[in-house]
Amino acid sequence: MKPHDLEKFLTTKIPLAKFMHVSVVSVHRDTLVLSAPLEPNANVHQTLFGGSAASIALIAAWSLLFTRMKDENVTGTVVVHRHSMTYHRPVTGQFTAHAKFATPESWQEFVEALDHKSRGRITLETDLHYEGQVAAHLKGEFFASRSQGT
Amino acid sequence: MKPHDLEKFLTTKIPLAKFMHVSVVSVHRDTLVLSAPLEPNANVHQTLFGGSAASIALIAAWSLLFTRMKDENVTGTVVVHRHSMTYHRPVTGQFTAHAKFATPESWQEFVEALDHKSRGRITLETDLHYEGQVAAHLKGEFFASRSQGT
Repeated sequence: MKPHDLEKFLTTKIPLAKFMHVSVVSVHRDTLVLSAPLEPNANVHQTLFGGSAASIALIAAWSLLFTRMKDENVTGTVVVHRHSMTYHRPVTGQFTAHAKFATPESWQEFVEALDHKSRGRITLETDLHYEGQVAAHLKGEFFASRSQGT
Repeated sequence: MKPHDLEKFLTTKIPLAKFMHVSVVSVHRDTLVLSAPLEPNANVHQTLFGGSAASIALIAAWSLLFTRMKDENVTGTVVVHRHSMTYHRPVTGQFTAHAKFATPESWQEFVEALDHKSRGRITLETDLHYEGQVAAHLKGEFFASRSQGT
């Protein structure tokens, strides 16, 4: 899936992504990068709101899984099951969200579980970058299930 | 702080809160309840987006701490340090977010730390309720610091 197509999909299907002005920087097999400005995502201190940080980190991780599944014709409906997030430093301007699979084996194990049990879990991680430093880190566990038609 | 005043503050100061149509249901010393509709907070499956869930849960927890501090004249700047969230069941309509302090001692320990060290940590929890059931749970650790003028 190309960045432009993913961006159109996200901003059409997820109202919050459109409001946050999420843009897609790059989509690869193992990594995906999003970007957003501060303004719609600010808190009362005029720094990045934690909810916006969690939102874009989740969208990045979900999108990496979604595009990889699309590209490899792996069917299934994906939802987030749990996540944890740590905030390291304030963000006061345009920032990026870098998603990756938690381990090199994650993808293959996920596909095998889906094929054998029609359900699987997978962990992804997203770092938020601002001015060359990691400002926040998310670890998210996603659950996928396959039923007729998905 | 009255619900109307808090709602005006949140929707003026946090653009995402306004877009999410967050409303304040009740504000008490130890609990605070927010509400929001599904539409601006939906994901690609037309259920509640995890990022919106995390956002309103964080706003509820932060607001409980913020209003308690205002009401008891406790000064300090509060930011979220880390949080974890678990999603139990899909939400497909208007939902509420119920924030509380993690333990009965949390507030007093937090105030004493702020008074003695000009900084303190405190953990709050938020349950998202939908149709009488807990749909998601957030545990958030907040950090407060006191410097001249805050």
